[in-house]
Amino acid sequence: MILRLLRTLAALTLPAAALAQEAEAPSPAAIVATAAPEEWVAIGLQDLLVMELALGPDGQPRRVVIQLMPPPFSQGWVENIRTLARVGWYDGLSINRVQDNYVVQWGDPDGEDPAKAKTLPEGLTALPESAYSTMVKDDDPLTGERHADPYAGWSTFLRGWPVGIETDTVHSLDYEAWPVHCYAMVGVGRDLPPDTGSGAELYAVIGHAPRHLDRNIALVGRVIEGIEHLSSLPRGTGDLGFYETAEERVPIRSVRLGDTLPEGERPRFEYLSTESETFARYLEARANRRDAFFIQPAGGVDICNAPVPIRRVAAE
Amino acid sequence: MILRLLRTLAALTLPAAALAQEAEAPSPAAIVATAAPEEWVAIGLQDLLVMELALGPDGQPRRVVIQLMPPPFSQGWVENIRTLARVGWYDGLSINRVQDNYVVQWGDPDGEDPAKAKTLPEGLTALPESAYSTMVKDDDPLTGERHADPYAGWSTFLRGWPVGIETDTVHSLDYEAWPVHCYAMVGVGRDLPPDTGSGAELYAVIGHAPRHLDRNIALVGRVIEGIEHLSSLPRGTGDLGFYETAEERVPIRSVRLGDTLPEGERPRFEYLSTESETFARYLEARANRRDAFFIQPAGGVDICNAPVPIRRVAAE
Repeated sequence: MILRLLRTLAALTLPAAALAQEAEAPSPAAIVATAAPEEWVAIGLQDLLVMELALGPDGQPRRVVIQLMPPPFSQGWVENIRTLARVGWYDGLSINRVQDNYVVQWGDPDGEDPAKAKTLPEGLTALPESAYSTMVKDDDPLTGERHADPYAGWSTFLRGWPVGIETDTVHSLDYEAWPVHCYAMVGVGRDLPPDTGSGAELYAVIGHAPRHLDRNIALVGRVIEGIEHLSSLPRGTGDLGFYETAEERVPIRSVRLGDTLPEGERPRFEYLSTESETFARYLEARANRRDAFFIQPAGGVDICNAPVPIRRVAAE
Repeated sequence: MILRLLRTLAALTLPAAALAQEAEAPSPAAIVATAAPEEWVAIGLQDLLVMELALGPDGQPRRVVIQLMPPPFSQGWVENIRTLARVGWYDGLSINRVQDNYVVQWGDPDGEDPAKAKTLPEGLTALPESAYSTMVKDDDPLTGERHADPYAGWSTFLRGWPVGIETDTVHSLDYEAWPVHCYAMVGVGRDLPPDTGSGAELYAVIGHAPRHLDRNIALVGRVIEGIEHLSSLPRGTGDLGFYETAEERVPIRSVRLGDTLPEGERPRFEYLSTESETFARYLEARANRRDAFFIQPAGGVDICNAPVPIRRVAAE
């Protein structure tokens, strides 16, 4: 192939050629670094959930920051989670399950025991099965490229999130869309009936995307910092990766909404607009790696192997 | 499944109907449990690599078992790895890199320093770029179903392994095929030139399938037991997840081929034939979950979300 031949020639010559090659075939990260300031979108403090775990084995803090999902997706559960965080309901609970290549799950370890379960606050909403996907109206045009997807038929990015879509509806400009289970996504544990998940029990994906859960369980956000404090935890040895003893569980010190933290502690994050030109270039480069290490661009990428770029910015 | 109260609630609220549904819609695991003995294929001892890490923080052994890839894939590298294991070359080396949602990598931590690098044994083969994929001849018919794949065009399972395929060749019964980067797959680290990986430096995938690496780097096997000893390691804080200090590295006590272990310690494993009827039913169920928890079967599955069933069997 011509591309391969050119790369071989470039490798034979010296630094100037290598630099030229780099300029011609930047990595996805290098493309993101060129984004204009206005292509980055601030994440509102009310959309940030800050979970402090007990200190790690090395005595260091373990902070996990979650971005809650924006409209039109899963807003009933997201509002429940805000309610639970505002009253400090999660404080003192624990991580109870770590299943390899699947999920980390946290909540009330006594939730199954009516005599010991922690009482839920007033004001939580029960959500129906229909809330697992959303009809997006034609005043919310789907601007991104649509990709063939083995689960959804099609997938794309919408307002910063990977979504599956179904477009063969009666009204061609409307479409049904739903968030998808990629690495680090956060969802709502539930019992067998689909309307039983409140947001009191949450999980994060720590393995290959379990996309079969899409539209079977509510997604409410994603871990944007500190996922390693979840993904590197010891795996549970009980059924489904539950810890078998209380000692194995990881205590949760607190879960706070970003806008309730003291001023100096409020985290600031931005995501790269998925409707931006730079994001389109990033996505194309994820699908066709041409930076120095690569000899064979794939020509495609799955929706969960192109994480939306997110960056921490200095507090105001 | 993301469940609380699974068994008790099912028993209380969904009695006869749930049982009937369970009988009609078995889970993928339940389907695998019905496989006939002759659908399971023994993995040869010469295809098993047993890596013993230093004892864990809890004082327990950490054993990782890798299945090496069979012909026609990557056999040059696989033979190099057998040579390295037979002379005990990996013993005393270490895990040097743990990058979240990507790879764990092990080998000689001084490999880049000519003054300190451990000398490689005689008899290793340098493999060309062309060895990253294999032309499979028409006497090796591709019996499995082909699935649309965002990276390869098509993918399928061949002799127990997930592969990408390219079928629009001149000879329609021949096809180019290559193993793909799913969770737990093991590959050969290399420098920039494609022919620089010997097998002395290895990595295992511990995150969402990095399929962009397919055909850019050699895959030689997969972890079939003990992946949690790799995936739960602390993440490295250096560039690319490398550990920044020698103390963080995890020592490798030994790496042995299965057929060189003492008789009583030889592990025995079997995989479910990917050409079997039960595997076809398993794959269909992975693509269309109808067991009790699910309300919306996806209708599809990606090649890396249908791991080939593998089981440990009693030693002879």
